[in-house]
Amino acid sequence: MYSIKYLQDKIKTEVEKLDFDLKPRLLYEPIAYTLSIGGKRLRPLLLLMSCDMFGGDLNDSINPSIGVEIFHNFTLIHDDIMDNAPIRRNKPTVYKKWNANIAILSGDVMFAKAYDYMLLTNPNALLNVIKTLNYVAIKVCEGQQYDMDYETEDNISIDDYINMIRLKTGVLIAGSLKLGALIAESSEKNAELIYQFGEKIGIAFQIQDDLLDAYSVNSKFGKSTGGDIVSNKKTFLLLKAFELADKNTLSELKDLMYKLKIDPEEKVQKVIAIYDKLDIKMTAIKEMKSYFDEGLRYLDMIDIKEDNKSNLRNFVNDLINREY
Amino acid sequence: MYSIKYLQDKIKTEVEKLDFDLKPRLLYEPIAYTLSIGGKRLRPLLLLMSCDMFGGDLNDSINPSIGVEIFHNFTLIHDDIMDNAPIRRNKPTVYKKWNANIAILSGDVMFAKAYDYMLLTNPNALLNVIKTLNYVAIKVCEGQQYDMDYETEDNISIDDYINMIRLKTGVLIAGSLKLGALIAESSEKNAELIYQFGEKIGIAFQIQDDLLDAYSVNSKFGKSTGGDIVSNKKTFLLLKAFELADKNTLSELKDLMYKLKIDPEEKVQKVIAIYDKLDIKMTAIKEMKSYFDEGLRYLDMIDIKEDNKSNLRNFVNDLINREY
Repeated sequence: MYSIKYLQDKIKTEVEKLDFDLKPRLLYEPIAYTLSIGGKRLRPLLLLMSCDMFGGDLNDSINPSIGVEIFHNFTLIHDDIMDNAPIRRNKPTVYKKWNANIAILSGDVMFAKAYDYMLLTNPNALLNVIKTLNYVAIKVCEGQQYDMDYETEDNISIDDYINMIRLKTGVLIAGSLKLGALIAESSEKNAELIYQFGEKIGIAFQIQDDLLDAYSVNSKFGKSTGGDIVSNKKTFLLLKAFELADKNTLSELKDLMYKLKIDPEEKVQKVIAIYDKLDIKMTAIKEMKSYFDEGLRYLDMIDIKEDNKSNLRNFVNDLINREY
Repeated sequence: MYSIKYLQDKIKTEVEKLDFDLKPRLLYEPIAYTLSIGGKRLRPLLLLMSCDMFGGDLNDSINPSIGVEIFHNFTLIHDDIMDNAPIRRNKPTVYKKWNANIAILSGDVMFAKAYDYMLLTNPNALLNVIKTLNYVAIKVCEGQQYDMDYETEDNISIDDYINMIRLKTGVLIAGSLKLGALIAESSEKNAELIYQFGEKIGIAFQIQDDLLDAYSVNSKFGKSTGGDIVSNKKTFLLLKAFELADKNTLSELKDLMYKLKIDPEEKVQKVIAIYDKLDIKMTAIKEMKSYFDEGLRYLDMIDIKEDNKSNLRNFVNDLINREY
């Protein structure tokens, strides 16, 4: 089995080898730009670790892992148009740096390119690999549509929200892990178990993101702290506050949300004061841990040597135990 | 072998069977809407005819043919956003009927769905089928980017234009035919020959479209006659006129193009008068026929019984011999 560091370096090398110095320039430049900025490269790493864990060949998994990274970045480029997002990873988004049309079309090419990298794999796994990417792609779009729907809908329940982040975040993490298992020709049952593991930890990661946005001291992920609060984003924290607040607190919270002239820092401070009164932070941490533990139970059920799971287990443990 | 009518009915039945009554509604409604409007269903038909011609099984080609139709409609939905097109096939485009975000995301789902239908085929052909769709998708995007680039660029040559329509129109027609050959497990050489046939007739069809837009008496394709002239679209006709016009005629043409207040009908009439002076119509017909004949020479070279080609040969002959 390979060390995480080795796999991360391998991904970095392969991404750097990608050549998008092609014509027409306005189609390919945004792709090179997006992939050069980086990000955590979490999904390709999970694919490689999963394949490795099930005894698969790194030569069969490396290209699909790049495919998954390209696919993920395609979804970000399109999401940024829809969300009007000017900044990602501390850099202008493609949609801002160029324009929406360029972002649509460069994204489309990346989607096709992702499939190209999926083909460079174990031929026995090919049908299942493509099927899985199709499934993931469709579910991620459903998640993004729900996310947009919810912007203007009232009465979004916590269940609605969890289902949305399951689709938008969980499914791709789950799919990446499943792809690794499929490439390694694991049993169907094991592939399904690692998928479930990934879906649950993906949900946990998103609740963690919500927490970090409100409670991390410094800017992480290239987002400013409290950005979700400023933009009235319906996060786990806000929806939980809606659920737990009494009539007066709810009206106070809505006032803060819809007041036209309010200093952003003041808004963040006051909303967090409400969260604190309602013990939202601890509730969210509990919810996050509960999804995380549920994920680990699926990992436990996977029918391979315990030793082979420890790399992945330690890695996700480290990710979820960052402080906030 | 099957009659064209039978294959067309088969496509119609399969498209009508597609079920997009799914949630979230705003994601799937535009897909059902787009596919219900119809169009000529040319690409799936070519795929089926090609597979049939090479002795392949209709059960292996029908689903990929639906995949190609879904893929084609995905490209139209995204193109319509980029081109600000309000109407297609006499109906509001998805982007107009809903909005750009919905059109982006519904298009993305259709792209993934197209791949799903590609999987329901002859397993021996699977790798080549997916590879071909990837290639086609990337080239179609390149064509669309050149098309957008050329809107604001001067000095577009006829060669630039032909290359652009080759990518934007020729490659998908060529790819559909090649997919049919691959599914039938034709020789590599025959698959390449039918691809070349398709690329050339695709270019011929686009020049024909340019001609019909200027010279057809009634509205065809749900476009109004002369629409390309009104919008200063750089068609084969206009670029050829740039090439052939003397200094005075060129200045007269540019005046008509950039005059701010001009009655559209008057503009169309006067531009066509210039085309007539330069014999553009006949030049375009010659160019179209030349690409068409080049395509037929590739069909001639295909190494199967002449009898088996006649269905496809007659069909494209009928298409190219519409009057204008």
